[in-house]
Amino acid sequence: MAAPDALIAAFIPASAVVAILFAVFLWKRVAAIQMTGGRVLSSQNGREYLLEEEQRGGEEEIVAKAADIQKSISEGASSFLATEYYYLGIFMVIMSVVICSLLSIVTPEEGRTSADELRNGVFSTIAFALGGATSILSGYLGMQIATFANARTAVEARKGIAPAFMCAFRSGAVMGFLLSGFGLLNLFLAITIFSKFFGDDWKGLFEAITGYGLGGSSIALFGRVGGGIYTKAADVGADLVGKVEKDIPEDDPRNPAVIADNVGDNVGDIAGMGADLFGSFAESTCAALVISAVSSLGKEHDYAGMMFPLLISATGIFVCLITTFLATDLKPAKVIAEIEHTLKMQLIISTLLMTPVALGVALWSLPPEFTLSVPSSSPDKPFDEKVVKSWYMFVCISTGLWGGLLVGLQTEYFTSNRYKPVQDVADACRTGAATDIIFGLALGYKSCIIPTIVIGVAIYVGTSLAGMFGIACCALGMLSTLATGLAIDAYGPISDNAGGIAEMAGMGEDIRERTDALDAAGNTTAAIGKGFAIGSAALVSLALFGAYVTRAKIDMIHSSILDPRVFAGLLLGAMLPYWFSAMTMKSVGKAALAMVHEVRRQFNTIAGLMEGTARPDYKRCVAISTQAAISEMIAPGALVIFTPVVVGALFGTQCLAGVLAGSLVSGVQLAVSMSNTGGAWDNAKKYIEAGATEHARELGGKGSDCHKAAVIGDTVGDPLKDTSGPSLNILIKLMAVESLVFAPFFYNCAHGQGLIFSFFGIA
Amino acid sequence: MAAPDALIAAFIPASAVVAILFAVFLWKRVAAIQMTGGRVLSSQNGREYLLEEEQRGGEEEIVAKAADIQKSISEGASSFLATEYYYLGIFMVIMSVVICSLLSIVTPEEGRTSADELRNGVFSTIAFALGGATSILSGYLGMQIATFANARTAVEARKGIAPAFMCAFRSGAVMGFLLSGFGLLNLFLAITIFSKFFGDDWKGLFEAITGYGLGGSSIALFGRVGGGIYTKAADVGADLVGKVEKDIPEDDPRNPAVIADNVGDNVGDIAGMGADLFGSFAESTCAALVISAVSSLGKEHDYAGMMFPLLISATGIFVCLITTFLATDLKPAKVIAEIEHTLKMQLIISTLLMTPVALGVALWSLPPEFTLSVPSSSPDKPFDEKVVKSWYMFVCISTGLWGGLLVGLQTEYFTSNRYKPVQDVADACRTGAATDIIFGLALGYKSCIIPTIVIGVAIYVGTSLAGMFGIACCALGMLSTLATGLAIDAYGPISDNAGGIAEMAGMGEDIRERTDALDAAGNTTAAIGKGFAIGSAALVSLALFGAYVTRAKIDMIHSSILDPRVFAGLLLGAMLPYWFSAMTMKSVGKAALAMVHEVRRQFNTIAGLMEGTARPDYKRCVAISTQAAISEMIAPGALVIFTPVVVGALFGTQCLAGVLAGSLVSGVQLAVSMSNTGGAWDNAKKYIEAGATEHARELGGKGSDCHKAAVIGDTVGDPLKDTSGPSLNILIKLMAVESLVFAPFFYNCAHGQGLIFSFFGIA
Repeated sequence: MAAPDALIAAFIPASAVVAILFAVFLWKRVAAIQMTGGRVLSSQNGREYLLEEEQRGGEEEIVAKAADIQKSISEGASSFLATEYYYLGIFMVIMSVVICSLLSIVTPEEGRTSADELRNGVFSTIAFALGGATSILSGYLGMQIATFANARTAVEARKGIAPAFMCAFRSGAVMGFLLSGFGLLNLFLAITIFSKFFGDDWKGLFEAITGYGLGGSSIALFGRVGGGIYTKAADVGADLVGKVEKDIPEDDPRNPAVIADNVGDNVGDIAGMGADLFGSFAESTCAALVISAVSSLGKEHDYAGMMFPLLISATGIFVCLITTFLATDLKPAKVIAEIEHTLKMQLIISTLLMTPVALGVALWSLPPEFTLSVPSSSPDKPFDEKVVKSWYMFVCISTGLWGGLLVGLQTEYFTSNRYKPVQDVADACRTGAATDIIFGLALGYKSCIIPTIVIGVAIYVGTSLAGMFGIACCALGMLSTLATGLAIDAYGPISDNAGGIAEMAGMGEDIRERTDALDAAGNTTAAIGKGFAIGSAALVSLALFGAYVTRAKIDMIHSSILDPRVFAGLLLGAMLPYWFSAMTMKSVGKAALAMVHEVRRQFNTIAGLMEGTARPDYKRCVAISTQAAISEMIAPGALVIFTPVVVGALFGTQCLAGVLAGSLVSGVQLAVSMSNTGGAWDNAKKYIEAGATEHARELGGKGSDCHKAAVIGDTVGDPLKDTSGPSLNILIKLMAVESLVFAPFFYNCAHGQGLIFSFFGIA
Repeated sequence: MAAPDALIAAFIPASAVVAILFAVFLWKRVAAIQMTGGRVLSSQNGREYLLEEEQRGGEEEIVAKAADIQKSISEGASSFLATEYYYLGIFMVIMSVVICSLLSIVTPEEGRTSADELRNGVFSTIAFALGGATSILSGYLGMQIATFANARTAVEARKGIAPAFMCAFRSGAVMGFLLSGFGLLNLFLAITIFSKFFGDDWKGLFEAITGYGLGGSSIALFGRVGGGIYTKAADVGADLVGKVEKDIPEDDPRNPAVIADNVGDNVGDIAGMGADLFGSFAESTCAALVISAVSSLGKEHDYAGMMFPLLISATGIFVCLITTFLATDLKPAKVIAEIEHTLKMQLIISTLLMTPVALGVALWSLPPEFTLSVPSSSPDKPFDEKVVKSWYMFVCISTGLWGGLLVGLQTEYFTSNRYKPVQDVADACRTGAATDIIFGLALGYKSCIIPTIVIGVAIYVGTSLAGMFGIACCALGMLSTLATGLAIDAYGPISDNAGGIAEMAGMGEDIRERTDALDAAGNTTAAIGKGFAIGSAALVSLALFGAYVTRAKIDMIHSSILDPRVFAGLLLGAMLPYWFSAMTMKSVGKAALAMVHEVRRQFNTIAGLMEGTARPDYKRCVAISTQAAISEMIAPGALVIFTPVVVGALFGTQCLAGVLAGSLVSGVQLAVSMSNTGGAWDNAKKYIEAGATEHARELGGKGSDCHKAAVIGDTVGDPLKDTSGPSLNILIKLMAVESLVFAPFFYNCAHGQGLIFSFFGIA
C-alpha cells in the first residue's frame, strides 16, 4: 500500500499543529490556577484535605508572596534571555557570514556549477538561521512556561500531592509538545519552501537543510554551557554567602542571589535541555534526510519514503499525547510513593505504544525495498548498493526506542535513592566526604556499561541493516517520544522551583515536604533525561559522522584506524571532552566567586537587608550571573566551534574523521558518568535528609556529620551533572554537524588533505 | 659502517651485566650506612651539623627503633609477596596451559605445518613464563631494596638533606639498573636460545618472543591493581581508626595498620611501578622485534639491524649510568630547594645525552636503507613496501625521548606545589572541600592536553616515517632512559617510608621536616613517573596493536571506523577503562573497611596497646590487607584478561581491533587525569602544611579548615592516583599484547569473523 504524497504533505504539518494546540490546551489548564489567593479546590484525598484546612489561615498573604517571588524569577529569566540572545544574535550573524562565504566560494564539484554552490551556501545559511531561531524560540517558551508554572505548583501543593504533581507535569508537557511541534513544523516548512528553489536537486536540498541542525545545536551549546555555568554559579554563590557566612536558610528571600539561583534552574535545565533535545531531533532528522537523499528514495523522488523520518516524529506526537493523558487524567500520582512510578510509566507506555506505530509508518510510507549507498568493503569501488527492506527500518526505529527506554531505566536505577547504588553512596558518608566521593565516582563509572552496550548494539544493528541511515533511524526512534521525554524532564526543575517558592513564601514544613518529594523524583527524571540526551546524541553524531564521511569523500581505506592521521585524530578527539570539561568546571568555580562578591556587597551596603525591611537587588545578581555565564561560555564554545574548522582545514578530512569518532566514544563515557555521579550524590543527600527508611534514619538526617559529607558530594556533583556532563552531548553533536555542513569546504582545502600537510608536501 | 654481529652479540649482554654490577655497587654504598647507631659522618653544611649535634642524645635508641620498624616493614612486605606470588603462580600455570593449547591447536597458516604451530605454542609459553618470572623478580628485588633503604634514609636525614637524598636516590637507582639489566639480559638470552630452535624462521621466533611481554604485563597488572588496593586500603584504614577514632598521630607505631600502610608504599609504588615499566620495556621491544621480523631486516637476516631495539636499551644503560653519577656524586641536592631541581635535571640530562647516542646506534646498526611492510592505502594489495632510511629511526627514537621529557615536565608543572595549578587548588580549599575537588578535577582534565598532543605527534611522525615500527621505536625512545626514570620514581616511596620511620622512631620535628621535603619532591617525581608510564604505555599499545592487526590479517578496509564492528568495538573499548576504574575504586573502599574492622578489633582486645606497653599484631593487618587486595584484584584482573579473548573469539578480530583502539584513546585520558588530579590534591595538602610561602601561610596551615578540606581531596585522590590511574596503563598494554599473542587463534575462529557472527551466518 503506497502512501499518497498529498496526504503526507498534509499530515506532517497537521500533527505539528495538533502538538501546538495540545500545548495551548494544557497551558490553559495550568493558567486556570489562581495566583490571587482565595478559592480552594476540593481534594479527594482525606489526609491532604485536612492539611489544607490547617493552612487556610494567612492564605491570601502566602499566595500573594508566591506571586511576588514568581514575578522576580520571571523578570530574572527575561533579563538573562535578553543578554544571552543579544550575544547569540551577534554570533549567529558572524557564523552566517562564515557559512555563506565558505560554502559559496568552493570550487564546484563535478556535475555542479558555481551557481549550485552559491545556492547551497545561501540556503544552508537560511536553514542555519531558522534552526537557531527555532532553538531560541524553544528555549524562550520553555522558560516562560516553567516560570509561569513554578509558583502555581507551589500553590497547588497546599491542596495535596495530586494537584501539585499534575500542575508540574502539565507544564512540562506544554514545553514538550510546543518544542516537538515547532521543531517539526519549521523543518517541514523549510523543506517545502526550499524545494521550490532546488527543484529536482534533492541531494542539494537536504544538504542545505543540515544547516537547520547546525543552527539548533550552536544555540543549544551556548544555552547548555551558559545556562549550566549560570545556574551553578548562582547556586554555589548563594549558598557560600547565605548559608555559610550569614547563617540564613536556603532559599531565603533576603539573599540577593536566591532569585538568580531559581532563575538558573530555568535557564540551565529547562532552556538548555530543551535546546539540546531540539538539536538532537533536528540533527537526527537532517542526518537521515541527507543520507536518504542519495539513496534510491532520493534518486527516484519517492516523496513518501523521503518523509519517513518526519512521519516518525509526527506520529510520535500522537503517541505522546495519549501517554500524557494517562498521567494527567487517567492515573495521576496521588501519593508521594507514586510519583516516580507514574513518571517511569510515561516512558514505558510511550515506548510500548510507539512500537506498532513505527511498524505501520515503515510499511506505509517506505517502498517494500529500496537501495542505499554504503561504504564498500571491496577494494574495487568506494560504494556498494545495499538493498534495504521497509521492515528493516522498523527494526532500527525499535532498537533506538527500546534502547532509549533501557538507558532511561538503568539511569533511574543508578540515580534514584530507592535503589541500592545511591543508598550505598549515602552509606559511604558514614566515613566522611572522601568515601562519599570515591563511591560516587565509582558509581558514575559503572553506569557507563549499559548505555555503551545499548549504543554499541544500536550501531551494529543500524549499520548492518541500513548503513548510516539505520543509525540515524535508531536516533530518530530514541527521540520519537521526545514530547514525553521533555515533559518528564522539564517537570524536575519546575518542582525544584516550586520547592524554593514554597520555602520563600513561608508555606510550612508539610508543603515543603511535598515539593521535596516532587523534586526528588524530578532529580531522577532529570538524570533519565540526560541519559536520553547523551544516548541520542551519540547516535545522532554517528549518523552525522557517516553523512560527513560521505560528503567529504572519505572511503573505507582512508578511514582506517591504521592510518596515522585517523589514529592521531582519534586520540585528540578523545581528549577534547576533557579539555572542554576542565574549562566548564573551572568556569563554574570562577563565576561562583563573582557571585559571592556581589552578594557580600549587597549585604554590606543595603541597609535593612538582613532585617528583611529592604528588598535586595535581585536584578543585579541576575545580571552578574548572566555576565559571568556569558563571558565564561566563550572559551569552551570557541573550542567546540573552531576545532572542526581548524582540524578540517589544516589537517584534512581524515584527521577530522578521527577527531569526531574519538570525541564521540570518549565523550559518551564522560558525559554519562558525570551526569549519574552528580545525580547520585544529590539524591544520596536527599535520602539522608528525608529519612524515609530505617537505614536512612541511621545516617542521622539533616545537620548530622553524614549529611555534611553528603552536601560536599552534592556540591561537587553540581557542575558535573548540570554544566560539564550535559554540555558534552552538544560537543559531540555540534562538531559532527558542523563537519557535515563544512565538508565541501574542507574537501576544497587541498582535496581534503589539509593545508598544513599540503604545504609541507606530505599529502 | 656495518656493525659486526659478534660485537653486538657481546655488547648487549655485557651492558646488561654492567647495569647489574652498577646496581650492586650502589647497593654496597647504601648498605654501608650503619643501622646499629653510633658513628656519625661529618656533614659539610654547618647548620645541618648543628642540628645533628642537638640530636646526638638518645641516638642509639632512635636508630635501634628505626631498625626495628624497618624489620617490621620488611616482614610485612615479604608476607605480602609470599601470598601474592602464590596466587600469581597459580595464575601463571593456568595461563600457560591456555596459551600453549590455544596456540598449538590452530589450523596451520599457509606455508606452515602443525609442528610449526606447536613450536610457536610451546615457545610462546616459555617466553610467557620467563617474562612473568622476570617481572616477579623485579618486583621482589625492588621491594627488598626499598625496604632496606627507607630506615637508612631516615637515619641519614639526621645528618642533613644531602646524605638523606643521596641514600634515597641511590636506592632508587639500584632498582632502576637492576630492572633494566635483568629485563634486557633475560630477553637477549631468550632470543639467543630460542634461535637455536627456530633456525631461519625469524618471524616465528619473534612472534614467540612476544610471550615475554605478555608474561611481564600480566604480572604487572596484578602487581599494580593488588598493590594499589593494598596500599590505599591500609592507608585509609589506618587513618580512619587511628586519626579519627583514637586520636593518635599519623604513622604512630601503636596503630596496628601503620606497618601495612608503609608496606603498601613499597608493594604499590615500588613493585607495581617496576613491574609496569618493565612490562612497557618488554612489550615495546617485542613489538619492534615482531614488526621488523617481517621487514627486509628480518627477511635478509640482518642481525645487527634486528638488534637495534635492544641496542637502544643497552646504550641507554650507559647514558643513565653517567646521569646517575651526576646526581649522586657530582652535584647532589644539598638543600631542600634543590631536591626537585636535581631530580628534574636527571630527566633532562639523560635525554640530552641519549640523543646523540641514539643517532650513533641508528647509523651504526641499521643499514642505510631497508624496507618495511606497511598497510597499503591503495585498494589493490594489502601491503606496501616502504623504504626507510636509518636516520628515520633516529628521528623516531628522539621523538619518543623528547616527547617523554615534555610529558614529564608538564606533569611536574601540574603536580608540583611550586607552580600555579596546585597553588590554585590549594587556594580553592578556602571555600571548602567541594571547591578543592572541583578545581582538582578540572586540573586533571586540563593536564590531558599536552600528553595527548605529544602522543599524537609521535604517532604521526612514527607512522609516517616507518609505520608501526616507527611507533614502537618512539616507545623505545621514551623508555631508553628507563633506569633513570625508575630511579627518580622509586625515590618517592623510599622517602615517604623514611618519613614514616622518622615519625615512628621519634626523630623530632626537624628531621621530619627534611623527610617531608624529600617526600614532596617524591610525590612530584611519582607523578612524572606515572606520566612516563602512561605515555609509553600508549605508544607501546599502539605498536602492539599494529603488530596484532598484521598478525590477524586485518587490512585497511576492515579496520575502517565506518565498519560497524570496528566502531561498536571502539565504543565498548572506550568504556572499559571506566568499568575497570569503577571496580578498583570500589575495591579500595571495601578493602579499607575490612582494615578498619581489624584495627578496631586489636584496639579493643589487646590490653596495653593504647598505652604503648603491648606491641600490636602488625602481621595480621598485613595479612588482612593482603587477603583483601588479592581477592579484590580478581574481578578487575579478569575483566582485562578475558576481554580480548572473549571479544576476539566471539565477535571477531575487527571488533577486537576497535576495542583496543577505543580503550587506548579513552584510557590515556582517564589515566593521565586521575594521576595528576591525585598528585595535585596531595601536594596541595602538603603546600598548606608546609606553609613555605606567604600565600601558603594565609591558608592556615595544619589543622585549619583549609587543611581539613585539602585532606578530603587528598583521600579522594589516593585511589585515583595510586590504584585506578596507574592500573589503566596496564589495561591498555596487556589487552594489546594479549591480542597479539592470541591473534592466530582468533583468526582460527571463523577466519577472524568471530564465532557468534559466524554462528548466525552474518560473517
